[in-house]
Amino acid sequence: MNLEELKEKLFQGNPRAIARAISKAEDGASDASELMKAVFPKTGNATIIGITGSPGAGKSSLVDKLALFYREKDEKVGIVAVDPSSPFSGGAILGDRIRMQTLGLDPKVFIRSMATRGKLGGLARATVDAVAILDAAGFDKVIVETVGVGQDEVEIVKTADVSVVVLVPGMGDDIQAIKAGIMEIGDVFVINKSDREGVIRTEKELEALLSLAHRHDFWDPPIVKTIATENKGIEELSEAIQSYKEFQEKGEKSLERRKAIAKWRLVELLQEKLLADVLNKNGTSEKLEDFALEIAEKKRDPYSAVEELLK
Amino acid sequence: MNLEELKEKLFQGNPRAIARAISKAEDGASDASELMKAVFPKTGNATIIGITGSPGAGKSSLVDKLALFYREKDEKVGIVAVDPSSPFSGGAILGDRIRMQTLGLDPKVFIRSMATRGKLGGLARATVDAVAILDAAGFDKVIVETVGVGQDEVEIVKTADVSVVVLVPGMGDDIQAIKAGIMEIGDVFVINKSDREGVIRTEKELEALLSLAHRHDFWDPPIVKTIATENKGIEELSEAIQSYKEFQEKGEKSLERRKAIAKWRLVELLQEKLLADVLNKNGTSEKLEDFALEIAEKKRDPYSAVEELLK
Repeated sequence: MNLEELKEKLFQGNPRAIARAISKAEDGASDASELMKAVFPKTGNATIIGITGSPGAGKSSLVDKLALFYREKDEKVGIVAVDPSSPFSGGAILGDRIRMQTLGLDPKVFIRSMATRGKLGGLARATVDAVAILDAAGFDKVIVETVGVGQDEVEIVKTADVSVVVLVPGMGDDIQAIKAGIMEIGDVFVINKSDREGVIRTEKELEALLSLAHRHDFWDPPIVKTIATENKGIEELSEAIQSYKEFQEKGEKSLERRKAIAKWRLVELLQEKLLADVLNKNGTSEKLEDFALEIAEKKRDPYSAVEELLK
Repeated sequence: MNLEELKEKLFQGNPRAIARAISKAEDGASDASELMKAVFPKTGNATIIGITGSPGAGKSSLVDKLALFYREKDEKVGIVAVDPSSPFSGGAILGDRIRMQTLGLDPKVFIRSMATRGKLGGLARATVDAVAILDAAGFDKVIVETVGVGQDEVEIVKTADVSVVVLVPGMGDDIQAIKAGIMEIGDVFVINKSDREGVIRTEKELEALLSLAHRHDFWDPPIVKTIATENKGIEELSEAIQSYKEFQEKGEKSLERRKAIAKWRLVELLQEKLLADVLNKNGTSEKLEDFALEIAEKKRDPYSAVEELLK
């Protein structure tokens, strides 16, 4: 399949073409840039939903149930699961296998895990590209699921149209810990496993924290209680997502938000490109290895090594 | 204080000099590079302990109790708390205030929070520099605490001599979710809040997962049960940390690990430097803003914008 064929099939929603396009973006293939230039003008039709929260919050079940809900309305659903993963083993494979049982056989569902695979950076950028590819391929909803609340994850979730933060009851006094990381990126909050003890307390604490937050767009984030494993609260969640989407489309802040996202994407791309250009120069990769060893042996410091590399 | 004075006072362990040096590294000040070149040869005496786990796992209490334990042995303790934080408000301030009550008045304890503060990247690099500064300033133990399990957090924890992963009981079937992210970076595992229900199940699941993992160094990571708020299990934790430190020093893998860390640092620094060089060029920052707006308005795609910026 050459690039022209790939683009054509991609825009028809062909799963193999989508998979290949995402791989190209992920690997930073030589024609990835050309591909993404063609993808970009076709984007903007999908609703991008970012879902984050700590491990154990039940995000995967929630995403699956939400996807099934959209499928019942005959919408095409793309799922991009971001896994910071291990530098050694890749990861995310187990989750994929479990998923394939319920959703994977449906041709109108596309599931992709993004992992770092030990490469140098670019996960966030690759994820945003994967979302754009699914958008251009005609998916109605694209759900991006991230594990954890790290810096990259926050960036990724911010690029969504609607960001959903998933909590569980009983985080007690530690709810404060969440505040700094993800409180202000949530457009919708979910308390999953809401049949557990402590749900009222968690809700009250969350409400108190939200009342302190000052959102630039004056949106009042709804709190939805779900039990994903029992398929409870999923319709309410979809309504909350939809209501923020509509609110955002009316508001003037939307362009500002999209500009901030665009700027972040530009910087990510720029950094990746600059690094690749340096490392592709003859001998630089070898020098990098040599210097790393010298630093490990304390014969050199990283700062002068970088100066030397850039000479 | 000029740079010579700063260095001198820093190496004497002066808290104001340490604070200023870390700020320089964090802000990427013009003389940060010169400072770090002087810092680097003085490092290598501290034990660097990385502590990670999800929000709500009680990491902060655990770090505080561990710090107090080391203080009782009259060791100097530096704490670097990494907070991916909000792009709007900074974050990490509340946690600091609470800490200052128990540890902050002790002159042999230095606490610093690192946050992104809306700047472009560099958090991981700045954190590693802060650790090096504390090491050079004569601290015996430097504890790096990260919230979440994101990609940057994993990188930061990997740079420690000993990486501690904190879990809590009752993560149930979701313990699998943790596997991919942090399982393989843990040299020591802690089950905190071990008076809670489900501790045996969590321990069994953890043991099962660890038995599947293949560590390159054949280390068998110990599992320590703690109740940080009641100061229970802290001595056992310190012993587990010490035993991995000793194991590592004997092993041949140590140089390899340090080389991998050095390489990661080099790439981080290189990327930051390359980006700064481009953005410092006349008019590039303005162009970046213009292009971001055009992308938001769908008049331009990010890939061609980057090509244009690099022209």
